[in-house]
Amino acid sequence: MAIKTFISKKNKIINQALDNYLPAADLKPSKLHQSMRYSVLAGGKRLRPILTLVAAKLVGDLAEEDVLPAACAVELVHNYSLIHDDLPSMDDDDIRRGQPSNHNKFSPALAILAGDALLTLAFELLSDIKAVDAKKINMITKELAEGAGHQGMVGGQVVDIESEGKEIDSQELDYIHRHKTGALLKTSVRIGALMGGAKSEELTALTTYAEKIGLAFQIVDDILDVEGSSEKLGKAVGSDSNKDKATFPAIYGLSESKELAAETVEEAKEALDIFTDEANILKELADYIIQRDY
Amino acid sequence: MAIKTFISKKNKIINQALDNYLPAADLKPSKLHQSMRYSVLAGGKRLRPILTLVAAKLVGDLAEEDVLPAACAVELVHNYSLIHDDLPSMDDDDIRRGQPSNHNKFSPALAILAGDALLTLAFELLSDIKAVDAKKINMITKELAEGAGHQGMVGGQVVDIESEGKEIDSQELDYIHRHKTGALLKTSVRIGALMGGAKSEELTALTTYAEKIGLAFQIVDDILDVEGSSEKLGKAVGSDSNKDKATFPAIYGLSESKELAAETVEEAKEALDIFTDEANILKELADYIIQRDY
Repeated sequence: MAIKTFISKKNKIINQALDNYLPAADLKPSKLHQSMRYSVLAGGKRLRPILTLVAAKLVGDLAEEDVLPAACAVELVHNYSLIHDDLPSMDDDDIRRGQPSNHNKFSPALAILAGDALLTLAFELLSDIKAVDAKKINMITKELAEGAGHQGMVGGQVVDIESEGKEIDSQELDYIHRHKTGALLKTSVRIGALMGGAKSEELTALTTYAEKIGLAFQIVDDILDVEGSSEKLGKAVGSDSNKDKATFPAIYGLSESKELAAETVEEAKEALDIFTDEANILKELADYIIQRDY
Repeated sequence: MAIKTFISKKNKIINQALDNYLPAADLKPSKLHQSMRYSVLAGGKRLRPILTLVAAKLVGDLAEEDVLPAACAVELVHNYSLIHDDLPSMDDDDIRRGQPSNHNKFSPALAILAGDALLTLAFELLSDIKAVDAKKINMITKELAEGAGHQGMVGGQVVDIESEGKEIDSQELDYIHRHKTGALLKTSVRIGALMGGAKSEELTALTTYAEKIGLAFQIVDDILDVEGSSEKLGKAVGSDSNKDKATFPAIYGLSESKELAAETVEEAKEALDIFTDEANILKELADYIIQRDY
């Protein structure tokens, strides 16, 4: 499948860039830097930075290497959020991507600080960008801060934690997902679009696309949590539903959740109608999201 | 004492600005926003944002209100670091500024997320600045990220935690303080200087000043931990030495530590010799730091 080859090619480029941007493992304080590198370089689909690269290419002609710092900044934010989410006082997950989670490998204190340092490094990476003008960098910085912050990813995580063990309605579930997962996916696409110099209608179309794949991504994640294998999911199956967390299958049922995922991906693809065939790779990425595991 | 009146006047302005920049307590997710506001608006000397304002005024003619977002960004970073430092898996402090620490008032999960959100909000505030050109905002963003990050404040906190219960030498103590406390104080001054458009020699002088007061600040903090009152310190007396943490009195003795603090403040003031009497307020702030409590 062509999209898998594409993803794997981009993965190599992104992993190499992350390796370069992360502090060296032997630089003092080395335990901190080892902890940062451990989580970020543990793998992952790199879906977010890929979306940034692809969106930038679709709307502009920046060289890929010029978009990489922004793409990697988003990935660093994603990784910091995983480290903090896994903490004992948060989701208390011992395993991440088939390996001991950061606090399990190092310590809760180091996991908190490694997360803090990764979030900070993301903004440092943006401030170092030279390929676009300074005004654009400010727009991107604002985009990342909003997507990651109290009205974005962190806000979603708070509501998610508050919902544990409670019955919540579909509106609340929607809030959690639009923020916890959706916000940063949207940010990934929009930062790419802004880097590339998207026109207003292009930015709008890509934003809709991103919102839809964010939703589809979360539905699929919830479905996999019910029927996937722990291997594919990289964490214990049922680890979310076991905690009485709000999930799509819990609210809509499994079969309706699958339909909803498929419909949402179609809507994501339709949002790209204003583009030529050059947007096909984004459409394939949308398909890949729901086909990935079930 | 004139400096106390000055500090209290600036405090009011800074507190008002922080109140404006922080999300409303009833905005969803309200628990998160309450938690963010609880710690930031609990008081504190606001030494860092005051340094930013004063440094900017010394070298340029920006209106104070135009420097406030940058000054408050530094204060948000300071507050996020206190919230995370107090966590059970870090310093495990139940009290901060005479009140229950954030995780004690809310929960460890909310304290982690409120800290994350405050750090993110700091960068959002910078990205919104309109009073200086975009290039300068990037410089300031980079300055904040470096001062707060893995080679700055977070790096110092890691080495501090690693040093607990161990005998450490004066070189290691120096590393901890230059990073854990010193880095962000330096950042506060330098961000003000950059906002104000400092010339190269002005920036150098102010940087030296900031490094010296950072050191003096830490020495005094350690001395107070031995002989201060819990009321003035806002945390339990001996809470650091009880944990076998590295302190100046533990390494140099109490009397030599006091001499060192006084010498360091003199050096801070000498660094300002290139300025006119307009730098007097910074000199008074330096004096204030060591006179504050003993």
